[in-house]
Amino acid sequence: MYISNRAKRLLNSPIRKLVPFANAAKKAGKKVYHLNIGQPDIATSEHFLEAIRNYDAKVIAYGDSKGDPKLIEAICKYYRQYGADYSPEHVHITNGGSEALQLAVETTCDPGDEVILFEPFYANYSTFVNQTNARVVTVSTSVENGYRLPPRDVVERSITSNTTAIIITNPGNPTGLVLTKKEMRMISDLVLKYDLALIVDEVYREFCYEGEFKSFSSMPELDDHLIMVDSVSKRYSACGARIGCLICKNALFNQQIIKFCQARLCCPTLEMLGATALYDTDAQYFADVKKEYQKRRDTLVECMGKLPGVQFGVPQGAFYMMVKFPVDDAEKFAIWLLQDFDVDGETVMFAPGNGFYGNPNFGQQEARLAYVINSEDIKKAVYILGEALKNYPGRTK
Amino acid sequence: MYISNRAKRLLNSPIRKLVPFANAAKKAGKKVYHLNIGQPDIATSEHFLEAIRNYDAKVIAYGDSKGDPKLIEAICKYYRQYGADYSPEHVHITNGGSEALQLAVETTCDPGDEVILFEPFYANYSTFVNQTNARVVTVSTSVENGYRLPPRDVVERSITSNTTAIIITNPGNPTGLVLTKKEMRMISDLVLKYDLALIVDEVYREFCYEGEFKSFSSMPELDDHLIMVDSVSKRYSACGARIGCLICKNALFNQQIIKFCQARLCCPTLEMLGATALYDTDAQYFADVKKEYQKRRDTLVECMGKLPGVQFGVPQGAFYMMVKFPVDDAEKFAIWLLQDFDVDGETVMFAPGNGFYGNPNFGQQEARLAYVINSEDIKKAVYILGEALKNYPGRTK
Repeated sequence: MYISNRAKRLLNSPIRKLVPFANAAKKAGKKVYHLNIGQPDIATSEHFLEAIRNYDAKVIAYGDSKGDPKLIEAICKYYRQYGADYSPEHVHITNGGSEALQLAVETTCDPGDEVILFEPFYANYSTFVNQTNARVVTVSTSVENGYRLPPRDVVERSITSNTTAIIITNPGNPTGLVLTKKEMRMISDLVLKYDLALIVDEVYREFCYEGEFKSFSSMPELDDHLIMVDSVSKRYSACGARIGCLICKNALFNQQIIKFCQARLCCPTLEMLGATALYDTDAQYFADVKKEYQKRRDTLVECMGKLPGVQFGVPQGAFYMMVKFPVDDAEKFAIWLLQDFDVDGETVMFAPGNGFYGNPNFGQQEARLAYVINSEDIKKAVYILGEALKNYPGRTK
Repeated sequence: MYISNRAKRLLNSPIRKLVPFANAAKKAGKKVYHLNIGQPDIATSEHFLEAIRNYDAKVIAYGDSKGDPKLIEAICKYYRQYGADYSPEHVHITNGGSEALQLAVETTCDPGDEVILFEPFYANYSTFVNQTNARVVTVSTSVENGYRLPPRDVVERSITSNTTAIIITNPGNPTGLVLTKKEMRMISDLVLKYDLALIVDEVYREFCYEGEFKSFSSMPELDDHLIMVDSVSKRYSACGARIGCLICKNALFNQQIIKFCQARLCCPTLEMLGATALYDTDAQYFADVKKEYQKRRDTLVECMGKLPGVQFGVPQGAFYMMVKFPVDDAEKFAIWLLQDFDVDGETVMFAPGNGFYGNPNFGQQEARLAYVINSEDIKKAVYILGEALKNYPGRTK
């Protein structure tokens, strides 16, 4: 039986591939602080389960392929409060932001087409591009420069006649970078000059701790090029609901996307019901959640700043930080932490950084830390990291 | 902005593309009998909502990429009662049978590879193949022959050096065909001779009304080639739950498939919980449901048999029938029924047949009828079809 090159070429998720080591550590009695995955411990807004518990139809029937009209209306309303004027024909509900990204790539890329990613990037972007046999072209950013975007000419050099799309997150995963207006204008100019699709993942838009978050949806010149990816996962701490959406004003794109949606029939009926109710969550919930994340970020930044030889970009948004450890190889360091190290029976798990780069030789000293655990646990986790760095045999300086 | 050829090449779902006409008919006050979509009116097993209502965790968290271990165990147990010996490493939970099919194709086909479908086929098979830039190669069956598979040499002629997989449903959608042991051996021989993947959709396995359903999983010689697609949608009348699975004993396949699963993170946490509970449904539920469908099938077969000039294959399983109408074009006939015809304010919707063929010039007089409405409504719907055939301007004989 033939196994496709498409499949073989994909990499295991850097966020999940060390799970077997973590499970072994737990089995051996160790407590593991999880900094590897963006699974918040924040309670899901109660509206979600309440709506589902009140569901009383006898048949859990197929929904609309485009998505539940009430959910679509709730999303339009959400965007209107930020001045973005979307109507129901612009919105398609998807199985999480993940499917939205897949469908956006499938609709804008043929095999061999090129998609630009700023590295380090959310690892699954690369998987979704490879899944369609398009090619990832990376533009590098670095810890030394706080992971800020490079100048326009550097980005422009990566565009070829095969480039069809740019994918970018804002606020950024894994860097926590919030784009400046200047960076956004630079991208917008290139998108218009080369007639590209701009696939923008703004799922962390409510989580901005420094400066001002500005959405690409506020730039009307992008209307025909902008494909927005959104999700309830992080905003309402409902990752397991798997409800996201694609938002786009390009009519030709929307004509095509519905065919993909029809083929997979629909998103789960109950989850769409729960997600609709989430949009009734009041502003205080966001204010509280944002305050909590800000506290965690401040704690992480303060504690990490005290570790000798460790470099990082201060995250302005989302809930991730990219760090560069003074070690030979961050993946080896991660495995060593799980297998061979503990402080009073406790250790730490993080996502090795090279999985967030297009070239596996890049980011080898780096790691992504998710600050989705409480501040006290963050302090303990960073203390353990500090002790580990003193003892790790592969320490480089 | 570039729109991919992949997207443009896809067809609108024949099952859903006439929905706007149906909506207009309803708006104009007509009652529409829906024979177009396989959405049963049978009540979902109560275990589903009960399990979800009892969920009391504070956070709706990400699940395992491979699927909830309890659900996987329930699926293994279900198969064991039929003598199929699957263990948890052979099972991956998917977003409905739809995602299972997509992932199976993505893992076994590169662009340009060929997948064999017996036409008429479930239309979305072709979409999933085209979505990956693989090619559909069809082997025709016909109403005149009761949609039975052609002889081995005809099937073998369609296999080339680019063929990597065969996709087949059993019991069949849209024909209701249940494969004979001889047909299954013929397919199995060819799969082994040419080292192909056999992607088998057995989601209707509980619905067999004539003869004996035999699963491909009962043929151990296929162990390294068989990729089973299953789903709770039809079996438990839980189409809107969107929980399916991929079952395969080929270790290399399973090594690859997990990478796709990791990229889209997980299936919905609550739906997996509900689906797990569905597997506790007792045998009486199936017996009752099967009896009900059998009654509907018998009613449909009897009533359709009285319409002059109409040919059809008697379905042995599932809940669909392919019919050939004495009309110029079944799609025009379907639109005419919705727009221009009614009997006492009532009309009928069905899925035009050409969408179930690889060549759009095939099946133009055919239609798929889903007998998912009760027997009294089936009688009324067929009566309306009969009256419509007397009055339709495009009647051919």
